[in-house]
Amino acid sequence: MGDDLQVQGFVGAAVAAHIRKKDRLDLALIYSEVPAVAAGVFTTSLVKAAPVRLGMERLRDGRAQAIMINSGIANACTGAEGMRLARATGKMVADGLGIAEELVQVSSTGVIGEQLRPEPFAAAMPGLVGKLSAAGLADVARAIMTTDLVPKTAVRTVAVGGREVKLVGVAKGSGMIMPNMATMLGFVLTDAAVAPDALAGMLKTAADCSFNRITVDGDTSTNDTVLLLANGLAGNPVIDAAAPDKAAFQAVLNDLMRDLALQIVRDGEGATKLITIRVTGAASDEAAVAAARTIANSNLVKTAFFGEDANWGRIIAALGRSGIDFDAERVDIAFDDVRMVASGLGQGAAVESRATAVLKQKEFSVNIDLHCGNGCGEMYTCDFSLDYVKINADYRS
Amino acid sequence: MGDDLQVQGFVGAAVAAHIRKKDRLDLALIYSEVPAVAAGVFTTSLVKAAPVRLGMERLRDGRAQAIMINSGIANACTGAEGMRLARATGKMVADGLGIAEELVQVSSTGVIGEQLRPEPFAAAMPGLVGKLSAAGLADVARAIMTTDLVPKTAVRTVAVGGREVKLVGVAKGSGMIMPNMATMLGFVLTDAAVAPDALAGMLKTAADCSFNRITVDGDTSTNDTVLLLANGLAGNPVIDAAAPDKAAFQAVLNDLMRDLALQIVRDGEGATKLITIRVTGAASDEAAVAAARTIANSNLVKTAFFGEDANWGRIIAALGRSGIDFDAERVDIAFDDVRMVASGLGQGAAVESRATAVLKQKEFSVNIDLHCGNGCGEMYTCDFSLDYVKINADYRS
Repeated sequence: MGDDLQVQGFVGAAVAAHIRKKDRLDLALIYSEVPAVAAGVFTTSLVKAAPVRLGMERLRDGRAQAIMINSGIANACTGAEGMRLARATGKMVADGLGIAEELVQVSSTGVIGEQLRPEPFAAAMPGLVGKLSAAGLADVARAIMTTDLVPKTAVRTVAVGGREVKLVGVAKGSGMIMPNMATMLGFVLTDAAVAPDALAGMLKTAADCSFNRITVDGDTSTNDTVLLLANGLAGNPVIDAAAPDKAAFQAVLNDLMRDLALQIVRDGEGATKLITIRVTGAASDEAAVAAARTIANSNLVKTAFFGEDANWGRIIAALGRSGIDFDAERVDIAFDDVRMVASGLGQGAAVESRATAVLKQKEFSVNIDLHCGNGCGEMYTCDFSLDYVKINADYRS
Repeated sequence: MGDDLQVQGFVGAAVAAHIRKKDRLDLALIYSEVPAVAAGVFTTSLVKAAPVRLGMERLRDGRAQAIMINSGIANACTGAEGMRLARATGKMVADGLGIAEELVQVSSTGVIGEQLRPEPFAAAMPGLVGKLSAAGLADVARAIMTTDLVPKTAVRTVAVGGREVKLVGVAKGSGMIMPNMATMLGFVLTDAAVAPDALAGMLKTAADCSFNRITVDGDTSTNDTVLLLANGLAGNPVIDAAAPDKAAFQAVLNDLMRDLALQIVRDGEGATKLITIRVTGAASDEAAVAAARTIANSNLVKTAFFGEDANWGRIIAALGRSGIDFDAERVDIAFDDVRMVASGLGQGAAVESRATAVLKQKEFSVNIDLHCGNGCGEMYTCDFSLDYVKINADYRS
């Protein structure tokens, strides 16, 4: 991180505002010196936190200039009062920066069901605005963490119309992770000039192959939000639907967001391993992802990974209940390149020790070929350890 | 157990046959002195073990006289050879008892993907048949256990046409428990006379409100099987679709099967608590059960139960992703009778200590009223402890 996590026109800062606990960075601010074209993807949960509903409303005209994030209280299930407080704390940011309220995005993560108190925000605002700096985005990455052990950042550059544009991203997330359109919180900032429709489309495409393909524990948050702000200061020809470099920008955006998503899985609550579940030969891409998702969420599969036990029976049991159609007698399963199941039958003790060696790695893939079509898809998951239970049996209390 | 677990005309026995491990009861036999009317419900997994496929085939004519169960090897994902071995070991039973092969049901539970060896079955068969006794059903209950800590049995009686009929049931299951049509293994024996169609219908009804409403870990087994045998020795008027006492018999069957199902959840891998998730006020019964099922399978909810933390935010987050329609601002949530959420808002510190006291109990219910219809439904689940991970990180190795 450090100098690298900078992109022209964007500044950041974070402070300890004592929103829920004392003496930890819990309030962060990102500011673009000029209003940026903006797009967001949000939780598909029916229960959406107040800042998610406010953010969706404010993004309708595709512009944003500031993002305030608190990591103490989620402001979910807080009713009309919660919405009032989301607006009120957003207005403090607008007033502090001298910009329109509608250009402020408010994001929250933390405990569900508790109300914010406005006082810590009011007290912290002058210091927060005063600290804004190009280097401050690194503090933002730390301040948005909850049960995360490490900050999550990514940086990419790409040439657009002969100009180099830069993208930086920060994200948080460790538990309640099976995003569906987004992850807990992710913010991608670029100096590229991008048309609003193109930006929204590219964000959705990138989310579908990154944050929407990860799971830690199968639970989807009320607060999932990914925002993408493009302030245009790179001076490139505007990227619109017809731009020749749109594909190159999309590829780099996908790569950056997948990088952040995998950082979340690696830092999954209690996780010791990152596992790619890759399904090929399915009847459709949708079926492949559905099968991969079922396996990626199976506690029995994930505890076997933790135990470094090449227990493919649990994988095929999860496949069997996944709801997709296939022929159990044609399934191949390999751990990395060690094929343990061929045409539905285990390959026995001969490959067991090699498969176990694969599972002892920090990262590996499970490759499943259903041999019944051309559909393929991946999910990224972690193992399920004793620490997951320890963390979640006393997270709140 | 003991004398009580007897029903006229049925005998049982169990031996240590060394099918996979030494010196534990791993082969059981149930025998009816006369051919019984029989019905079964089986896993809905697309991946069905050989004994499940054989059992379904043999039950088409609605009769059975013997059930052999091995608890060493599941005989799942074993191809044509696995099916040949299921038939071959079934034939050993038929020959030993002097009955037709088609009257023998074969059930298996244990490791997926390994082949049975016929030798231990052949060696054990004379001793197994020789030990059959009315009191032996208690040994059957013990011999079918795998990661179970306690045997699971239930006994009921009911008057049918002036005659008392008796039902006894045994079951096993602790992990890979989210049955869908059945549980790991359950066997219900009765001396009632029941018409085949009525028996099959009543078993399905009872399974839908018992084994199909429990979850330990959200995983459905390849071997789930519940068999119901009625040998008619009670001499009651045959229970058919029009019988006046059919409803009474159904009620007792439901009660017995729910008893067994709850014994499985109480003995869920690592479980310390039994929790009923009850959803009312849903748009339909199906929606209520879907919501209850999502909550009952949430690792975050279940680890909070283990931590005795009345963290209702995780419950409402699970509701939000359950796929059913409701209004988050009308939801009430109570732990037993302590209402923590009213109209979507937490009731704060005032009720927290009372709610925590509820969670400290061994058994309690979570009562959720969606206030958007008349649909209701329940699921039964357990908490998610450190021991769950310990058990499953090294179950196979």
